[in-house]
Amino acid sequence: MQTVTVDLGTRSYPIYIGAELLDKPDLVSPFLQDGRSLVITNETLAPLYLEKVRQLAGPCDALVLPDGERYKTLETVSRIYEKLLADKYDRSSTLIALGGGVIGDITGFAAATFLRGVDFIQIPTTLLAQVDSSVGGKTGVNHPLGKNMIGAFHQPRCVLADTAVLQSLPERELKAGLAEVIKYALINRAGFLDWLEQHRTQILDRDPGLLAEAVNVSCREKAEIVGRDEREGGIRAWLNLGHTFGHAIETAAGYGVWLHGEAVATGMVMAADLSRRLGWLTAKDALRIKKILADYGLPVEPPADIEEQQYLDIMLSDKKARAGRIHFILLRDIGKAELTSEVEPALLRQTLQAGSRLCES
Amino acid sequence: MQTVTVDLGTRSYPIYIGAELLDKPDLVSPFLQDGRSLVITNETLAPLYLEKVRQLAGPCDALVLPDGERYKTLETVSRIYEKLLADKYDRSSTLIALGGGVIGDITGFAAATFLRGVDFIQIPTTLLAQVDSSVGGKTGVNHPLGKNMIGAFHQPRCVLADTAVLQSLPERELKAGLAEVIKYALINRAGFLDWLEQHRTQILDRDPGLLAEAVNVSCREKAEIVGRDEREGGIRAWLNLGHTFGHAIETAAGYGVWLHGEAVATGMVMAADLSRRLGWLTAKDALRIKKILADYGLPVEPPADIEEQQYLDIMLSDKKARAGRIHFILLRDIGKAELTSEVEPALLRQTLQAGSRLCES
Repeated sequence: MQTVTVDLGTRSYPIYIGAELLDKPDLVSPFLQDGRSLVITNETLAPLYLEKVRQLAGPCDALVLPDGERYKTLETVSRIYEKLLADKYDRSSTLIALGGGVIGDITGFAAATFLRGVDFIQIPTTLLAQVDSSVGGKTGVNHPLGKNMIGAFHQPRCVLADTAVLQSLPERELKAGLAEVIKYALINRAGFLDWLEQHRTQILDRDPGLLAEAVNVSCREKAEIVGRDEREGGIRAWLNLGHTFGHAIETAAGYGVWLHGEAVATGMVMAADLSRRLGWLTAKDALRIKKILADYGLPVEPPADIEEQQYLDIMLSDKKARAGRIHFILLRDIGKAELTSEVEPALLRQTLQAGSRLCES
Repeated sequence: MQTVTVDLGTRSYPIYIGAELLDKPDLVSPFLQDGRSLVITNETLAPLYLEKVRQLAGPCDALVLPDGERYKTLETVSRIYEKLLADKYDRSSTLIALGGGVIGDITGFAAATFLRGVDFIQIPTTLLAQVDSSVGGKTGVNHPLGKNMIGAFHQPRCVLADTAVLQSLPERELKAGLAEVIKYALINRAGFLDWLEQHRTQILDRDPGLLAEAVNVSCREKAEIVGRDEREGGIRAWLNLGHTFGHAIETAAGYGVWLHGEAVATGMVMAADLSRRLGWLTAKDALRIKKILADYGLPVEPPADIEEQQYLDIMLSDKKARAGRIHFILLRDIGKAELTSEVEPALLRQTLQAGSRLCES
């Protein structure tokens, strides 16, 4: 087992990473104090892991929600509030999120806002959630007018990233998680990209040791960035590499058609393409980025039916846009992300129109 | 004009107190940066002050909500989200709350959760909001199962407490606000109680200088407590004097039948009564508390139709209850509040049954 500490002063917390952690109650018990716990999970995961978590956390009730991004709404959070209030949970209670990013985000937001904040513990069950939403305390829900528009920063007390649960993860979700793993290499760890290229076959075959190492490096990288910039004033924005384009793809295609990681993969190819057009990235490096994502089985081409204006409209209403300017995270080099809002419209247009020719010379 | 600084590190902010501050744009402009502003107010206040605030804040849009505590809901917050998203407000935006506690709490919660947090400015228009919700960053909404059950801590950038607007405040609301002013004297400032007794007639006649001084002392007192305990781990709980009983009265009577300050007034008489029964407070001091509240035109007797069990049920589901114990703020002396959960059930029962004989020997 490895431990990554997210260093945020009084709100610091550990991420435990390793196989079969769901069988180790000692990891969680120090955080449960004397209050009651409520597990929030979904219909897919409850039959697989709910009993294990109940043994971990002691006797506790559970709320089983329907599965899917379309339930990441204020209405679902209201269902959690109703359960908590009807059953008289109080400020000493802990919410335990057992699930992927959707369950983690919803549960975290409920914990952030129930009685102005109660504790929560995350047990992420997807690779994406283990390497992304387990670090940084972003919680929230979608709104019909935009993704993650309602939310709060609320740090968990601890995170249990059990890599054994990744063995049963659907292939497509594993790959979507690997897109975020590759992202950490691109923004700040060039050497990690070599490692991901070298071990691709074994990682896709879910070698437990290599998967745990990929989660470990990813969490460590994100924790370091978040520790230096909790509220996204500066370098935390790097973590949005591929996200400005990616969110536009997700929104235009309709929530749930593309997995988040898939959209981010294509978004990173678009960011690499734009970086190359700006003269920041060599043609060779841009192509290398596209190739590793494709080799990992990820989509590297946006849907043909998204119009240029549609991209611009969505990107302008992205919450990272400010005062009418789109902010991009682009690459000065592999392992060197940079925030810019200075992009010549003509170059942006070329990227939006490139389609299957993204990153090709 | 007087300025009270709420000292919370990087989230510190000033409260400006004085007459005609709505005519002084220089106070607000430093906090508006380059982003857009949206004023949130209600149908009663918009005709009176919206144009003034627009001149203060520069050209900006407004959302005018219906007036009343029954609109302090997640549905109303959703209306604010929709407005913000439809009109493409971004992270550089500022929400301006023009109104009493309901508008302040709703707007603050919307600001806390829109895009995971945007700035907000409070312009409290009731005495209660000026001396209570202007300090401490508590925001939130009610739920059918309980008051203020959903919320967040989110500090405003600045507060403008214009005492001129208090001249047009309905008599009943003025008195309800004075209940909270008296509360500050009871919990920590015995000398202030003498002052409030001495100047009662002029204060009820709305002498501008005395009202401003009452707001100033109250904000200073609350700011000091909140500065020492932002998240209610310790002494901040003192501010809940009268609130455990008061919330029960408000809830049992139905939201909006009693004004919050009225319920707190009666709740403080009940707390004084219980303190006397515990031997903490002399009979003379308990009676003095009941008398000043009655002299200020506040109710000092709970509705006869609330059953003992109803009180207990509501108080146990209060968010200040923990692990099945009711927490009370009681008085060791006038000016000396103390938190306790050690109250003999028989004594509590006597207080709940005392009715018009509260604090009488």
